[in-house]
Amino acid sequence: MNAKPHFLPHDPIQLDSFTFEPFPRSKKVYITGSRPDVRVPMREITQSPTPLANGSVENNPPITVYDTSGAYTDPDVKIDVRHGLAAIREAWINDRNDTEILSQISSHYGQQRLIDSRLDAVRFPQHRLPRRAQSGQNVTQLHYARRGIITPEMEFVAIRENQRYQDIDNNPLLTQQHPGHAFGIRTPRVITPEFVREEIARGRAIIPANINHPELEPVIIGRHFLVKINANIGNSPTTSSIGEEIEKMTWAIRWGGDTVMDLSTGKHIHETREWIIRNSPVPIGTVPIYQALEKVEGKAEDLTWEIFRDTLIEQAEQGVDYFTIHAGVRLAHIPLTAKRMTGIVSRGGSIMAKWCLAHHQENFLYTHFADICEIMKAYDVSFSLGDGLRPGSLADANDAAQFAELETLGELTQIAWQHDVQVMIEGPGHVPMHLIQENMDKQLACCAEAPFYTLGPLVTDIAAGYDHFASGIGAAMIGWYGCAMLCYVTPKEHLGLPNKHDVREGIVTYKIAAHAADLAKGHPGAQYRDNAMSKARFEFRWEDQFSLSLDPLRAREFHDETLPQASAKTAHFCSMCGPHFCSMKITQDVRDYAQQQGLAQVEQAIDLGLQEKAREFVAQGAQVYHPRRE
Amino acid sequence: MNAKPHFLPHDPIQLDSFTFEPFPRSKKVYITGSRPDVRVPMREITQSPTPLANGSVENNPPITVYDTSGAYTDPDVKIDVRHGLAAIREAWINDRNDTEILSQISSHYGQQRLIDSRLDAVRFPQHRLPRRAQSGQNVTQLHYARRGIITPEMEFVAIRENQRYQDIDNNPLLTQQHPGHAFGIRTPRVITPEFVREEIARGRAIIPANINHPELEPVIIGRHFLVKINANIGNSPTTSSIGEEIEKMTWAIRWGGDTVMDLSTGKHIHETREWIIRNSPVPIGTVPIYQALEKVEGKAEDLTWEIFRDTLIEQAEQGVDYFTIHAGVRLAHIPLTAKRMTGIVSRGGSIMAKWCLAHHQENFLYTHFADICEIMKAYDVSFSLGDGLRPGSLADANDAAQFAELETLGELTQIAWQHDVQVMIEGPGHVPMHLIQENMDKQLACCAEAPFYTLGPLVTDIAAGYDHFASGIGAAMIGWYGCAMLCYVTPKEHLGLPNKHDVREGIVTYKIAAHAADLAKGHPGAQYRDNAMSKARFEFRWEDQFSLSLDPLRAREFHDETLPQASAKTAHFCSMCGPHFCSMKITQDVRDYAQQQGLAQVEQAIDLGLQEKAREFVAQGAQVYHPRRE
Repeated sequence: MNAKPHFLPHDPIQLDSFTFEPFPRSKKVYITGSRPDVRVPMREITQSPTPLANGSVENNPPITVYDTSGAYTDPDVKIDVRHGLAAIREAWINDRNDTEILSQISSHYGQQRLIDSRLDAVRFPQHRLPRRAQSGQNVTQLHYARRGIITPEMEFVAIRENQRYQDIDNNPLLTQQHPGHAFGIRTPRVITPEFVREEIARGRAIIPANINHPELEPVIIGRHFLVKINANIGNSPTTSSIGEEIEKMTWAIRWGGDTVMDLSTGKHIHETREWIIRNSPVPIGTVPIYQALEKVEGKAEDLTWEIFRDTLIEQAEQGVDYFTIHAGVRLAHIPLTAKRMTGIVSRGGSIMAKWCLAHHQENFLYTHFADICEIMKAYDVSFSLGDGLRPGSLADANDAAQFAELETLGELTQIAWQHDVQVMIEGPGHVPMHLIQENMDKQLACCAEAPFYTLGPLVTDIAAGYDHFASGIGAAMIGWYGCAMLCYVTPKEHLGLPNKHDVREGIVTYKIAAHAADLAKGHPGAQYRDNAMSKARFEFRWEDQFSLSLDPLRAREFHDETLPQASAKTAHFCSMCGPHFCSMKITQDVRDYAQQQGLAQVEQAIDLGLQEKAREFVAQGAQVYHPRRE
Repeated sequence: MNAKPHFLPHDPIQLDSFTFEPFPRSKKVYITGSRPDVRVPMREITQSPTPLANGSVENNPPITVYDTSGAYTDPDVKIDVRHGLAAIREAWINDRNDTEILSQISSHYGQQRLIDSRLDAVRFPQHRLPRRAQSGQNVTQLHYARRGIITPEMEFVAIRENQRYQDIDNNPLLTQQHPGHAFGIRTPRVITPEFVREEIARGRAIIPANINHPELEPVIIGRHFLVKINANIGNSPTTSSIGEEIEKMTWAIRWGGDTVMDLSTGKHIHETREWIIRNSPVPIGTVPIYQALEKVEGKAEDLTWEIFRDTLIEQAEQGVDYFTIHAGVRLAHIPLTAKRMTGIVSRGGSIMAKWCLAHHQENFLYTHFADICEIMKAYDVSFSLGDGLRPGSLADANDAAQFAELETLGELTQIAWQHDVQVMIEGPGHVPMHLIQENMDKQLACCAEAPFYTLGPLVTDIAAGYDHFASGIGAAMIGWYGCAMLCYVTPKEHLGLPNKHDVREGIVTYKIAAHAADLAKGHPGAQYRDNAMSKARFEFRWEDQFSLSLDPLRAREFHDETLPQASAKTAHFCSMCGPHFCSMKITQDVRDYAQQQGLAQVEQAIDLGLQEKAREFVAQGAQVYHPRRE
């Protein structure tokens, strides 16, 4: 199906050719910004025309959608995972003239790995030298934003967020949208680079974009923008290979993942990460304490600031875009977890808790927080302040431990901002529906509106095997309430490590949740794809229904299970009701009929959005509609 | 695996032996009421003991859960689908002495089918004579309730709703629960038969229980009770056989379906229904207009009151427990749909709209509504007043047509109640999250708190292939807001007819939504299964985690994909983090350690629910916890 080379040289695993296939009836388009190398990728979905009763057709406009899949779905780009993606940001970074290429890797650990010939077989083939801020420079997007500078990254995300929506502005059927309930936020109809800059300067949005990840297609995370989703991948000591992890990354972005976290805790963490970053067009996040723990052979009490610091630098120089740092698990909070149903369920949180207790000392991530900021700003790594005390069960939701930590995260946000380091805040977890909004409200209050990034939350504990869904309910709700990014949960949650199929299931579930949130907020343009889909549905344009779906392949597969023949793709029925019994078909008859009647007043009222008025007309007068009624 | 006969004599389809397997570590128990034949089935899940550090064990109580699966999961009952289930309600109905067994089927159509020897091969083998109210009698549960009579059905559902929750009342860890947000409703801690009677008399709850469905295990639908879910099954002209439909019904109840609607529009509708009802322990609903339309060969304009009336009687005498009747689609409402994105998407709604337009007359279901009530009360068929003008797309949500119909449904509710006929109200459809609550609030206001029964709603239109989830989000939310029953949506929605696997997926998704709603409402006892699950999770009791899950088989299957060996079932780790890196394990270490410290004040505050107080103690004094801290 695809002739591109997509083997890993040292690995028996082959990337699924599926990864490289453009979506049906879709083509990759690029919108160019103010400089020719700001080329923002989107996916344009072609629609079929609508056949009209008089034998002519009405054309339906192409629908442009947000595209996270990177060059993998661009047939004009040759993908070779041994070389990685093109460094599209390199000129932007160079032009700022505030960084330098180092002569060697700074971290001790990174240096050791590089010279270890036993790792040659698993090492990413291209060696690159890291980049760092020049002495005294701060290279974060927040720093630029506060100085009034609009970076190419900011312009890129502004174009990207607009999704070329203005192209269908003249189509009222497609642009119609319910006013949302956005809990006070106001997103402008057109996102400008200046609006992006303001939101970043205010700390309300971040663009995770390490200067060592020039392959990145920038993405913005903040509640005035489209709700984003993250996919966790990563191996564990019992499962998975580098090839599988790269494949999971490509599947995550293919189905709509905006960022990917590599949570590997198994073999070759350093090398796996290099492969992933070099091949990732989306921001990569990590939890550095996981690797630090591996370095001390799993003994939390043996962790030191020096080992952790070296890990931060090692990962920052590879190009990790955001770090989860569990600096809010303070010694004083730990007793608050003693009576919990499920104690501390965050891995990072439990590691730090164990360290604190073993040493009877304050969490070193907390005491060294300013030192961490110094590293972050030299590479523009964003903070994802970890919720180490998040509830692992409904019973523990919104408890003293959780909210004590949240207050500390608010305090740390202010410190990070003093260093012009970008920050988002991680959130729970397991929370019943009626307690979700309190999480959002408290986060905004404690953390001065820094973007919130939540795992679910799961709204019940008894859905093992279906936790993508149990958490997706909570995710949709908290996205509506203002959460900026939703960390997906796969069907394997609580049971095992996800494979690529679970990644797809988790991602699509979370795309639904995120999109539902955008719709409820009334995010500008959020409804136009739904409108196009509904129009296609009403007109029995089956191919368009498939291609407008979030997962076109699944939609077609399900349809074809009962009606595989090509003729069914244009048939005015489906297997649900059969050919002689279709409500949509009957409705079209009704509509044709009704339009022959005099409905001027009613139609005009509806056109003007005067629904109540329209009902009044109907209620008042039979003459409006049924002249022949007895 | 199972030696029971489970073949259909005339059908090559074999019921999956899976259908007859009890759930893992579960046994069917019956709670006996005030008379020995009120035997309420439940499922008791056995838990493993918790190993303690001192070598002894702590026992964990069995967890009793609601059980919709009927005799199929009772190894003591011999199932033979050719004979149907035992008529457990027969004595209750006889004892009321207000019904009579007819000498023959009343409906003309039913008589014709009976004597047609070509149908012998597909006909249910046992012929039974129908039962009807004696002349002048009203045999509805609402009628009894209003006269102060507590029926065995009412007692049955009272026992059933309590789920034997009092058995664990002495276990504060399991009984702890967040106070809910129940939008004004107050469900008592213990549901009494008298409370059930009051709710039914008030019209706020219904027990759909046709006197011709004596096999029924009664269930109550109302917002002071557990949120219920319905599964739609039924063939279409292009797919499925009787055997498949019976199997879908058994799968639906196995996974937790509280009621089943047979929406068949294909071959042998009458015979299929007989097979389903005789084998169903849950209420069966239908949309009689579907069959009426088949009788006039799909020509809506040829429908007549006489044909419809005969169909109602035909189905009522078979034992259908509730009818969807689209009497709210008034002629005057139809113009309101002319400008819609997706017109009229309800099959019943579009049939009636077409009829109204063809004849320029008011909907005959509306004009004959009192006549319909007369039939309903003679058999105790409940109304499910259909939302024929529900929105089929986000664009059409909460519009003039939808709410005009809802007002009519409110008017019809009052008429039904004048006849002591039980009523619930159907609701949408496609609605963005922020417009869902308006649906619930308006329904309560218009329909005087008659139970609401919604399809989803779907919160986006672009999730084809995943609409079980896109609708499950809306279902969970409207369940929280007060919806009494949620009609499931399967992954095949909009694409094809569901098979039994889709039924399972749809049901489990909706069980999650309904349970999440119960939790958010703070329904008494809703959290205890979650608590048991979380405790099992924290203690690495893997077998208990599987058996406490809503779908134990899926949970085990996912776990075993990476760790199939038996030893992993008691291991203190899983494939997610591997043996040396488990947050729960670390937390237990932390907890053991922390408990050696002096935490009296903090613990006491937490015990008392004084979370804020506990945080204050921690904030105030290092002396509370870390005596050795520098």
